[in-house]
Order: sequence, then C-alpha cells, then structure tokens
Amino acid sequence: MSVAKGGAVLRKVTVALGERSYPVCLGIDNLDQAGEFIARRTKATRAVVLTVSTVNRRYAPKLMRSLKAAGIRASRIEVPDGDATKNLRQVAKLYDAFLELGLDRSSVVISLGGGMVGDLAGFVAASYLRGMPFVQIPTTILSMVDASIGGKTGVNLKQGKNLVGAFHQPKLVWLDVGTLRSLPNRERAAGVAEIIKVAAIWDEDFFALLESDVEALMALDPEVLLPVLERACSIKAEVVSRDEREAGLRMLLNFGHTLAHAIEKLRNYRGILHGEAVAIGMVFAAERSETLGFAPSGTAERLRTLLERVGLPTEIPGFERKAYLEALRVDKKKRDSHIQFVVLRGIGRAETVPLSMTEIYPAQQRRAATGRSKKA
Amino acid sequence: MSVAKGGAVLRKVTVALGERSYPVCLGIDNLDQAGEFIARRTKATRAVVLTVSTVNRRYAPKLMRSLKAAGIRASRIEVPDGDATKNLRQVAKLYDAFLELGLDRSSVVISLGGGMVGDLAGFVAASYLRGMPFVQIPTTILSMVDASIGGKTGVNLKQGKNLVGAFHQPKLVWLDVGTLRSLPNRERAAGVAEIIKVAAIWDEDFFALLESDVEALMALDPEVLLPVLERACSIKAEVVSRDEREAGLRMLLNFGHTLAHAIEKLRNYRGILHGEAVAIGMVFAAERSETLGFAPSGTAERLRTLLERVGLPTEIPGFERKAYLEALRVDKKKRDSHIQFVVLRGIGRAETVPLSMTEIYPAQQRRAATGRSKKA
Repeated sequence: MSVAKGGAVLRKVTVALGERSYPVCLGIDNLDQAGEFIARRTKATRAVVLTVSTVNRRYAPKLMRSLKAAGIRASRIEVPDGDATKNLRQVAKLYDAFLELGLDRSSVVISLGGGMVGDLAGFVAASYLRGMPFVQIPTTILSMVDASIGGKTGVNLKQGKNLVGAFHQPKLVWLDVGTLRSLPNRERAAGVAEIIKVAAIWDEDFFALLESDVEALMALDPEVLLPVLERACSIKAEVVSRDEREAGLRMLLNFGHTLAHAIEKLRNYRGILHGEAVAIGMVFAAERSETLGFAPSGTAERLRTLLERVGLPTEIPGFERKAYLEALRVDKKKRDSHIQFVVLRGIGRAETVPLSMTEIYPAQQRRAATGRSKKA
Repeated sequence: MSVAKGGAVLRKVTVALGERSYPVCLGIDNLDQAGEFIARRTKATRAVVLTVSTVNRRYAPKLMRSLKAAGIRASRIEVPDGDATKNLRQVAKLYDAFLELGLDRSSVVISLGGGMVGDLAGFVAASYLRGMPFVQIPTTILSMVDASIGGKTGVNLKQGKNLVGAFHQPKLVWLDVGTLRSLPNRERAAGVAEIIKVAAIWDEDFFALLESDVEALMALDPEVLLPVLERACSIKAEVVSRDEREAGLRMLLNFGHTLAHAIEKLRNYRGILHGEAVAIGMVFAAERSETLGFAPSGTAERLRTLLERVGLPTEIPGFERKAYLEALRVDKKKRDSHIQFVVLRGIGRAETVPLSMTEIYPAQQRRAATGRSKKA
C-alpha cells in the first residue's frame, strides 16, 4: 500500500536486440500515459487489449481511455484467467475474434495482466497473419521482471507447459507499479521468487540487497521496489540481449524450472503459483548443486532462508518419484537422455550442465514423496 | 521425362539473411545425398520427415536411407494431402506426434513434398518448443521456386488461407528436379505460373526467355529446366533477402494473389490448384493495372498468352461480385478499408499500391460472374 504517486517513466531499461530493441518503462500510476507511448512506438491506430477479469475491471478502463486519447481505436477481450486455459483452444478462439474485429498486421496486440495472458496474447500476436506488433503491460511482479521481457510466448499442451510457442519480442514493456497495490500477498511473494532467482544466478550483491530489504520489497516501499524491479529487469534484459533464442546463456533463467514445471504439471497447474513452484525447484536445484559438488555447502540454505522469509514454500510436495520422472521426460530442455539442468556454482553464479535423470532425481531423494509411495 | 541424370548439387543459390542465410541446392536425382548435406548443415542426429502419400511411396524410402547413412535417426509422418487439411487440427496432431516421438529442439523437421506440407511442417517446426531447425525438400515446381524459399509458413483458418503462421527460415532447401518427372502435367503448369509471376514482376529478359522456351520447360528439358529454376529461385532469394518480413518489397510476390486467395476460398480450396488461381489472379491484376493507368496497353495480353501456352486458366470463374468482396475482406494484406494491391508497371516491373475495393473489383468487372448473378 506504500507505493507513492509518480510520473510516467521514472526508470527505463533497454533490451538491446538491434533492430528489435525495445524499452522497459517503469513508473507509478502511469497507465493513463501508456497510450501515448504505445502510439509513438508502434504508429498503430488500431489495437486489441487482452486481459483477465479482475485486471479488466480495475485497470482496463484507464488504459482504454489513454489509448483513445492517443488516437488508437482499441477493442478489449477478456480471457479466462489461469494457466489451465492457456491452450490451443483459446488461441483458436482469439484468431476468430481477431478476424471478427478486422484486425490486420498493423494493429497492435496489448497484453494487460500477468504472465499467463502475456504468453497467450504474445503467441497469438506472433502467429496471427504471421505476426503483429505486441505490447506488454504486466500487472504482477512475476510478469514485470520475467515473462514480459525477452519475447518468449507460448501455450500449454496437455503433455506439458509452454510446449508450443514463439520468440516474438514486444515493441514496448510498460510497467505501472501502482497496479501491484491490488496484488494479493501470495502473488507478491511468488513474484519475488523470480527476483531472487535472477539474483541467485547472476549477482551476489543484488542477492545481499534482497537479504536486507526483502520485507520492504514485499510491502511495496517505492524506495526499494523501483530500484529492485529496475535491477531485476536489467539482468533479464542483459541475458536476453546476449542470447535471444536460448542457445546457451539464457538457459540460466531456467534455474529451478525443471522441477517447477514437473510440479505444476502434476498439480494440473492448480493450487500452486508458478513462483511457488520455482521456489521449491530452486532449493531443490541448489541442493543438487551442492550434492554433485558444484556449489559450496550452505548455498541452498542461504537461498531457502530468503525464500522462506517472504513465505514461499521450499519443500517438494508429495508425489511419487516415478511421476516426477515421467513429468520431467517431456521437459523441453531435454537433449536425448540427459536434461540441461541449471546448477549454482554459489550465490550469484550459475551454469547449465547435462545431467541424467538419476543425477537430477536420485532414488534416495524422496522427502515428502515417501509419504505417498505405493507401499504406504 | 527428359530430365537427365546428374550430381548432388549442380547449381546453388544463397538466400542471404545474415546469420540465418541458407543455401538452395539444385540437382538431379540427388535425394540419396540429401542426408549428408542435412547432417552437415544442422548437426542433427534426430529428424522427422513430414510427407504426403504419393511422395512418401515414391521418394521417402530413398531419403530415409540417405538420412540413416548420414547418422541421423529419422521418423516419418504421412499427413493427408490437400490444402483443406492444412489447418490447426492437423497442427495439434503433429505436436502430439512430435512429443510421442520425443523430438526436442535439436531435432530437425524435414518437409518432403509440395507447398502444403512445407507450410504445415514449417509452422509446426516454428512453434513446437518455440522453434526447431527445418529443412525443405520440395517436390513440385511450385514449391521449388516459391513456397520453399523465404521462411513463410502457415495454416488456413476456415475464414481464409494462411491466416495463421510464422516466419521461420529453413536451414537448407534441397531441390531434386528428378522428382518432377512424376509431377502431373497440370501441376507442372501450376508451378510454371509462379515462375512466370517472378519474371513478370522482376525481370523482362527472363520473361522473354520463358516466351521462347516454355514448352521445353514443361517437358522438363534439363537444358532449360535447371537454369530457369535457378533464375526463379535467385529472384525469390533476392526479394526475400531484401525484405524478409514482407514490410514492402516482398509484397510484390503477392502479384495475382489477392484474387487468387479469394477464388481458392470460394472453391473451398477444391478443384483448383494454387498456381491456376494465381494465373487467373495475375491476368486480372494486369488488366486492372492497365485500366487504372499503371501499365501500358498489351501488358495483360502478353501475360495471358504465355500462361495459356502452358494450359493455365485465365478467366475468373463464375461467382458473384459480393462473394468476392467478402472473400477479399479478410485478405491479410488489407490495411483499413484499402488493400495493398500489386500492379504491374509493365512486364518485369511491379509496384504495391493501396486500392479500394471498388478500384480492385468494380461493378462492371463481372465477366463470367454475370452468368451467376442473382437475377440470372
């Protein structure tokens, strides 16, 4: 509740990708100026805003007015919330809606909401008429620092998460941190998990800063929130600039995600937030890093402590080992029988290594899972 | 039947797109060497060949042996032939099949067949796991000179052709002109239509060459076939190199396609080949170019004469004007109420101009359509 009032663009990060470079603009209560910036960046006179119910009610009217004032005729489509409907059916419905609205290649697709609507809107923008301009207006911490930057778009198949998608960079990412005031505490924490992730793989000083200020961050104190978001966005932007198509470096951002995807899949994407699954996955990966001799002892503990301070889960939920292995099998980072697994070398340093299934999830690594083994 | 025996790569054209540049290799009866080149270009050890029934029976075994000899483990998927099944349902089935086969981002997708399978395979390759390497082995004249070069991939929606897709460049285009021996005469002619198209928009000398040798081309005389295919591929490659994403220049390749798409749609993509629809569309566009004062009188007639020598249709089939306008409305080149229409300035020179519906299809422009007007 402590986000102060502010201007349109208080801080700016650039994602450097040559001709496809774009700015990430951070401000407080700046939705009413978004239209003007979108018009300037895209030259569009026609737009469609994709959003989800609560965000639609709270923030879409302000954005729509802003677009209108900037000379952009905008339509609005509300999609069902939740990762379970981020699928090909929804994509096909949106193609039909876009045709119905008469949108063409010069119309801009604007995503207003969290990572789910951004991924979905981005994939439709990437594939409708072979590609339309796209703008991200993320309204969660998670999507501000992660999903909205870097051009990854995609939808789920029943076999797994984000198995279909495209790299389609936005023209602009617009951050109104004022929208975070309405973000429930549990979702704030899930977003902070991804901030902790980029610190853990990239920048020990930033990690230490989070260790001193994480409560102020959770309280949305603008003195902490703005520089932390800017720093997290900068790291993400730097990694993406150096490896847009995830040929190497960018895979580091998957730290904690191998297990996270398996957990989400086994839960049918219900009852657990992505950031929560990532928190569990990070501690797991850090422990494996220690056991396999990549990271010094205590690395996982330091990570666990910080995650738990914001109320994030760090224990693997109770599923059988076999189920995890099956879920991991379709992980898209798989190469032949090995998985490209991100290990920590310590806090602030990560590396991708090919690990076998057994190295990732050894028989003795059961934890809570034993409670649900077949013989129990 | 007069294609001579020959080597692996007799001629080579490069599509210059920086890091994404790739060769178009032309040879005669060179499928048994394709595997080696694919292995060298992609470093893949796993592949899936997408093909259609007749091509599968005739040519896939040779390709599969060649891939195996090159150390690539390849699976084969036969998809139903015909543009009517180039749709999202088929795409979803292929995602499932790819997962079942355990394909990952390092596996290569190889399209063996005409433009339809290339478009479909290319879109799946573009979107499965956000993109896999892709190789085109076109087996029709049409796909050799047009669809296989330039990275346009896509599928149809019920509302229109290629409304969904991606730009996804192949790593290699492999042309075995020996496969053309089994191409029915009607499909040869449809392919020659696209060759005539690139000559008409780009190169009057090439057009004149076709005027002298088009019968030898139809007979697949290698003395004519190879240089003509090379020249047509070079023009396509040059246009694509200068405008990969169809921001301007590349739109010239849509010459004749505005009406062609409308005709194909009204026929439900049945009973008419794409090249035939393009032939009709080109004569129509050339006539409009003359009427609107862009091209000198006689331009359309010269085009019509050449097209008719290879047995291509040049008259608009009988549908009502209203139906055409409705079909044109969802044409993806539409910008607001105008359509970006490709006109000829003369043989060998073209230009894209925004035209209104009335300029494109005026009330008096009815021809065969009058036979089916409401009052008839």
